[in-house]
Amino acid sequence: MPTTNTEPTTEDQLESIIAAAAAAFDTWARTPYADRGKVLTAVADALDDQADVLLPVAARETNLPDGRLKGELKRTTFQLRLFAEVLGEGSFLDARIDPADAEWPMGAPRPDLRRQLEPMGPVVVFSASNFPFAFSVAGGDTASALAAGCPVILKAHSGHPELSLATGTIVQKALQAAGAPDGLFSVIFGTQAGRNALQDPRVKAGSFTGSIPGGRALFDVANSRPEPIPFYGELGSTNPVFVTRAAAAARADEIAAGFASSFTMGAGQFCTKPGVLFVPEGSSIPDKLPGQVTVQPAALLNSRIQSGYVESLDKLSSSSSVTALIRADNALADPPAPTLLLTTAQEVMEHQDELLAECFGPAALVVTYQSEDQLLTIANDLEGQLTATVQGEDSDDVADLVRVLAKKAGRILWNQWPTGVSVTYAQQHGGPYPATTSAGSTSVGTAAITRFLRPVAYQNFPQHLLPEALQDANPLRVPQRINGSLTTAS
Amino acid sequence: MPTTNTEPTTEDQLESIIAAAAAAFDTWARTPYADRGKVLTAVADALDDQADVLLPVAARETNLPDGRLKGELKRTTFQLRLFAEVLGEGSFLDARIDPADAEWPMGAPRPDLRRQLEPMGPVVVFSASNFPFAFSVAGGDTASALAAGCPVILKAHSGHPELSLATGTIVQKALQAAGAPDGLFSVIFGTQAGRNALQDPRVKAGSFTGSIPGGRALFDVANSRPEPIPFYGELGSTNPVFVTRAAAAARADEIAAGFASSFTMGAGQFCTKPGVLFVPEGSSIPDKLPGQVTVQPAALLNSRIQSGYVESLDKLSSSSSVTALIRADNALADPPAPTLLLTTAQEVMEHQDELLAECFGPAALVVTYQSEDQLLTIANDLEGQLTATVQGEDSDDVADLVRVLAKKAGRILWNQWPTGVSVTYAQQHGGPYPATTSAGSTSVGTAAITRFLRPVAYQNFPQHLLPEALQDANPLRVPQRINGSLTTAS
Repeated sequence: MPTTNTEPTTEDQLESIIAAAAAAFDTWARTPYADRGKVLTAVADALDDQADVLLPVAARETNLPDGRLKGELKRTTFQLRLFAEVLGEGSFLDARIDPADAEWPMGAPRPDLRRQLEPMGPVVVFSASNFPFAFSVAGGDTASALAAGCPVILKAHSGHPELSLATGTIVQKALQAAGAPDGLFSVIFGTQAGRNALQDPRVKAGSFTGSIPGGRALFDVANSRPEPIPFYGELGSTNPVFVTRAAAAARADEIAAGFASSFTMGAGQFCTKPGVLFVPEGSSIPDKLPGQVTVQPAALLNSRIQSGYVESLDKLSSSSSVTALIRADNALADPPAPTLLLTTAQEVMEHQDELLAECFGPAALVVTYQSEDQLLTIANDLEGQLTATVQGEDSDDVADLVRVLAKKAGRILWNQWPTGVSVTYAQQHGGPYPATTSAGSTSVGTAAITRFLRPVAYQNFPQHLLPEALQDANPLRVPQRINGSLTTAS
Repeated sequence: MPTTNTEPTTEDQLESIIAAAAAAFDTWARTPYADRGKVLTAVADALDDQADVLLPVAARETNLPDGRLKGELKRTTFQLRLFAEVLGEGSFLDARIDPADAEWPMGAPRPDLRRQLEPMGPVVVFSASNFPFAFSVAGGDTASALAAGCPVILKAHSGHPELSLATGTIVQKALQAAGAPDGLFSVIFGTQAGRNALQDPRVKAGSFTGSIPGGRALFDVANSRPEPIPFYGELGSTNPVFVTRAAAAARADEIAAGFASSFTMGAGQFCTKPGVLFVPEGSSIPDKLPGQVTVQPAALLNSRIQSGYVESLDKLSSSSSVTALIRADNALADPPAPTLLLTTAQEVMEHQDELLAECFGPAALVVTYQSEDQLLTIANDLEGQLTATVQGEDSDDVADLVRVLAKKAGRILWNQWPTGVSVTYAQQHGGPYPATTSAGSTSVGTAAITRFLRPVAYQNFPQHLLPEALQDANPLRVPQRINGSLTTAS
């Protein structure tokens, strides 16, 4: 269903789009993995080809600088190609084969059982404001859902409608040229259309990147359906950084520079922005920070983000618990100058909800601590996080802190900064609520494909009716777990 | 927290139990996998040792025959030992290692990233009425949660309180003797205590086996928490069986006998009971079935199950769409004689919700079809199922039917019967709603452990602070995915 303008999608249009997605599912789900991979690669090629068309539209709608947008587009097309590789390798299927075993020690003969992951069905993807390419129309959710074998109904973000339309048109044309089924991918506009799509019984999963209130509302919609469906929302995170005494003593300049760069990167509009830095009392880092924050005020993504930022920063900086470390006259102006606030661990222990709330934009909080016990107490009380970082020295005894942080966050960093999420096999972009609505999943990296798959077991099936990955001959040469033992095809 | 009686757990008792579980989590999560496995094996040994104590209590409370209970206990202890094996093998960790790569083609250098699955935290397990051992106190949910590294708060089923108390006491003593942390496992009683436990912020997941209304209510509780948590409910399924024309012609006697045996097994009180059999119009199977249903009336599990069965069967058999194939005078008595009803595919197409509702007990519906198109239409309209079965011949062209069924069910069978769920590496016991509340998971088989795990990535960590499974030296010899390629330790 080609979408030709950015007007809110009507009910009739949505009905056609969902019907087409449901019909496309049957074809796409049984399209050979290698062919699915070729289609994804064709989409990547088309986007790269049309970069000159897309980048100016993106810049106009998001205020993001050209270099950042170019890098993000590259990441986006890399991601599509990486999922093509995942499809070729085949271990995403988690193929398992248990041959019949009359002596199976459970007490009853084991039948022949073979299990693989199969696509769930059409997915509604709600795209993000802050990554107009990588978490948007042709972003990671779309790439992983298509790779899984699921049609995508893409709800465009209101912050960049023209870019969504342009990207969607390129994706649709590339899909058509590559022979993908009609209706495999559509772009819809408007809050109500997105909500309606999520409620449609033909839709089998949803994914989202955005705010806590917005994501929670959609999560509730998905779960209150007559048939609830999984909803993978990536919502919010403060991404705390803990600087040990030894690191503060050894690397104060480096840490101040690194933190200043990370929290102001992209005007602080990353879900992985380090929003709070814990430093030992007496450290020189707070004093060094003002000299390190040298970026010019930059316009935020759009007026809604700007007003949300002003509101949350105003609230935070009015707290009697904080003082200003950096606060320019234009801290709340448009564009806003970066702000750094200062407080103590004791205050955080008493007002954690207020002081560690996410403030989306170029602001952060520096917290001085007196004892390592304070850090452990605060870490134990953290809400779910996408990331948590330790700046330490090899001699530090931080095993307990790391263990607590691993309970709270999806990614733990050592002596690096959380912004800049690499797309890899081992990446984890997720975490306990409110970082995400599904702590068991990731929205970045090759494991993201699993979100849109469900296991199906075949019992006592003749070879010719089995999916190829479960056949003895293993024609696709995928890794198979045979009788519990992992075997990789030679 | 040893529970000493079957009275409803008080709020104070529950507070102590949850606090102890939360404390036990820290210790248990870092207990070496091999030691966790030894603890599970010790529990299995203790249960086997005390079989003579447990079996009479189980028989008294559930009306189930001794042979069945013995088999179920064997399955239960096998399951505990199988998870010990899973812990030794290590691929449940899904360990992934991406070494740093300055040339990573995403456009930015790749940091060193390492990811594994880690336990979520304390789990509330709601046990089932119909499997007093295997889906109850020491059943699959408990075994997989403990294996995952999660403490268990076990809500006993009201149908077998004394058995729950006795089993719980044996499990607790075995855990203590094996050196497991205090509070790792507790049994609670009472609906309100179960609900309160599920709402407690220290609890991080829930699992359930039971009815659709009961499971849905708890699913809604888990999702409406300030911090929603995953809730793995296995609710209900009709488990349709489709007999092709060729199979009906070739194997009418065998199919009639197999179906009669399967739907009456355990007095029809299995979630995998085949509740509906589709046969071609004119087949002799319906005529042969009455002669095959020879089991004596058997008391159902308890009075609630009995009254629920009478109500749903009464409703179904009052429908103007059905006639009786087998309906004894004592069909609705206690104990109830098995009942078989008859209808047509046309009626099912018009009244699917009414005719294909689960009827938990010794009743089933035989449906005659005129065309294969009717089967595909009905299959396409099915609700989510735990199983779907095809009775066919090798010459049958049933690929389309199998494909539709794979969208609807977690396990597809060919020429076998769905009752009797083997515990294996490739088993899948799950399916789209209302079969379960989480189509991506299984409650039987080794993959069940994944329900209680979440991924954590470690970025740029020194070796000594990494979990062992992510260290270069791989001291546990677990399978590792290194730079995208699966390697199994030699």
